[in-house]
Amino acid sequence: MNDRFSFSVRFQDGTARTGLIHTPRGSIRTPAFMPVGTAATVKAMLPENVKATGADILLGNTYHLMLRPTAERVNRLGGLHKFMNWSGPILTDSGGFQVMSLAGLRKMTERGVTFRSHIDGSPHELTPERSIEIQCLLGSDIQMQLDECPPHPIDREGADASLEMSLRWAARSKIAFTEKSSSGMALFGIVQGSVYEDLRRKSLDGLVAQNFDGYSIGGLAVGEGQETMFDVLEKLTPHMPKDKPRYLMGVGKPSDLVGAVARGVDMFDCVLPTRSGRHGQAWTKHGPINIRNAKFSEDETPLDETSDCPASRDYSKAYLNHLFRAGEHLGPMLLSWHNLHYYQQLMQQMRAAIEAGRFDMFVADFMAAQARSKTA
Amino acid sequence: MNDRFSFSVRFQDGTARTGLIHTPRGSIRTPAFMPVGTAATVKAMLPENVKATGADILLGNTYHLMLRPTAERVNRLGGLHKFMNWSGPILTDSGGFQVMSLAGLRKMTERGVTFRSHIDGSPHELTPERSIEIQCLLGSDIQMQLDECPPHPIDREGADASLEMSLRWAARSKIAFTEKSSSGMALFGIVQGSVYEDLRRKSLDGLVAQNFDGYSIGGLAVGEGQETMFDVLEKLTPHMPKDKPRYLMGVGKPSDLVGAVARGVDMFDCVLPTRSGRHGQAWTKHGPINIRNAKFSEDETPLDETSDCPASRDYSKAYLNHLFRAGEHLGPMLLSWHNLHYYQQLMQQMRAAIEAGRFDMFVADFMAAQARSKTA
Repeated sequence: MNDRFSFSVRFQDGTARTGLIHTPRGSIRTPAFMPVGTAATVKAMLPENVKATGADILLGNTYHLMLRPTAERVNRLGGLHKFMNWSGPILTDSGGFQVMSLAGLRKMTERGVTFRSHIDGSPHELTPERSIEIQCLLGSDIQMQLDECPPHPIDREGADASLEMSLRWAARSKIAFTEKSSSGMALFGIVQGSVYEDLRRKSLDGLVAQNFDGYSIGGLAVGEGQETMFDVLEKLTPHMPKDKPRYLMGVGKPSDLVGAVARGVDMFDCVLPTRSGRHGQAWTKHGPINIRNAKFSEDETPLDETSDCPASRDYSKAYLNHLFRAGEHLGPMLLSWHNLHYYQQLMQQMRAAIEAGRFDMFVADFMAAQARSKTA
Repeated sequence: MNDRFSFSVRFQDGTARTGLIHTPRGSIRTPAFMPVGTAATVKAMLPENVKATGADILLGNTYHLMLRPTAERVNRLGGLHKFMNWSGPILTDSGGFQVMSLAGLRKMTERGVTFRSHIDGSPHELTPERSIEIQCLLGSDIQMQLDECPPHPIDREGADASLEMSLRWAARSKIAFTEKSSSGMALFGIVQGSVYEDLRRKSLDGLVAQNFDGYSIGGLAVGEGQETMFDVLEKLTPHMPKDKPRYLMGVGKPSDLVGAVARGVDMFDCVLPTRSGRHGQAWTKHGPINIRNAKFSEDETPLDETSDCPASRDYSKAYLNHLFRAGEHLGPMLLSWHNLHYYQQLMQQMRAAIEAGRFDMFVADFMAAQARSKTA
């Protein structure tokens, strides 16, 4: 078995591309969607069913895991893969984004960020070095540098100062990773720079000079709107290394994924399929539906009778409607499963379209179906 | 395919026995434990995983289903089996017990019981005829007569008057069942009489004279204690028809099941494995444990490494402890699954011991393990 991390592009169709990431724990077909396993579980899902949807890799959250059950405990128990019964690759974030969105009493300095746990108020510190140490204790296959995630909107000066610090943190992350990581683990740098084209380039160039295993795009899907996000991607990805994976963090809706793949992105993660599933929203080829809606209470049809996913095929909308109205666990379980399968199916369809050289037709069909669902 | 309901005893070992209930939807190995699917779902379980634990039959609750989504809606949607994606046999209760324990503003007369829904306060009536109508609309394979479930304790006179009314309701249920049921459906009478041996006999004899497909034992496990329950069973089951299944309703703990099988009972249902699983209690061969206990937070061992159930075998106690502490859906999912598997395994072991003529040894071993776990 090859124990090195590698990436190769397989097919290119316009700016869109398919590829294969190799890790010692298995391969990842790109474009890839990574289900989010925040607290060492993809919420309301059995891992064998996550796997069966076609997911090659999961995402774990450093912030949540460092607080509970702690990285040291996960390490003593054999690492995150064994802990959560997932043998495939795992990518972890750096914890920075969630410190900003969840933790209390944050204080950021050049050294790192101190904060209080949202669970019990206990004090913690996250530095570039500590973030890498945690990710190595977890046994993460693909790790992220600690970066600063500035709010949106932010002015040029603020965005510039922030990305400069993130570049310095990237360098410190790389040194820590070189010291602590095991063979086959990978470290990605994160491109910041808000909506400013020249700052995005500056951030990218600063990272590429440090030669990371892959490049993440942070600071998008934070309220700037899809059009602006696509615009940033369009100006950024042509300058990104062709031989390294490109990961758009925290994105997104199905139409976000399609548009970003068209602009050359290889990897995604998002809580949307599981979170919306827990709240009764199901993604379908005709757009999203709210299964709690009374119009489904006697609808005998399943979410997708042509699907090979049991959650999509074997239960009527009327039954799902009943489960959500009765507050039964099985409702969130089935809709999370259905939505994850829908997302993986979308990725598979995009990969097939790219490899057949007809991705533009796929995008046109997808947009037409979206438009129909909005006017229906 | 034989479309008639039937029961045959296979092996007898002392008073304990194994048998096979045949229904058009499949066979049920007895002694059988029926997982409870109150609102058309075994809580936090995928039906395919319920099946995989070894369950041949589920129980559905008439009271819950008549209120939401209503029996008429389930019927329009093709019946309860199709609705909840369970193709095997289903037994339904009459609704009477839960009217008494859950509904508001109850009024009981010779005609039946009126009450208000615990969900929305709407008024409803349940009569012997309506209960059978509902169970037929659901498509239940094994139906229960409506009975009165008197409180415990109750004096002789009260118990006597109550069982007399239940006998008259049994007769009305039978007439309704003959009119409304489909081929292959079965109707059980319910023996009442509280803790009074002669009243239990009177109830039984009154039902046997009406010739039901099986005989349920109601009004136990309502606070009288295990010793009293076993005493009632010991004096009752020798007089029950040998060629009809005997169903002890709403029971119970593993030790209740073992003791009742030893006294000739064939069928059981109880929410305990799923309810306790949702609250962090796991049943093991060494007795019940509370997985939230801090002593499990670094326990690398699974609940049962020799099990063929993924929930029992593939996750450490430390991970389960983490899931419950973090309030993750997967905790209740895995512990419900494990507990249901534990219960089905216990039934399988009892059936094997009876068929090998060594049930007394099984009981002795079981009691010894119980005693050890209490002193450990």
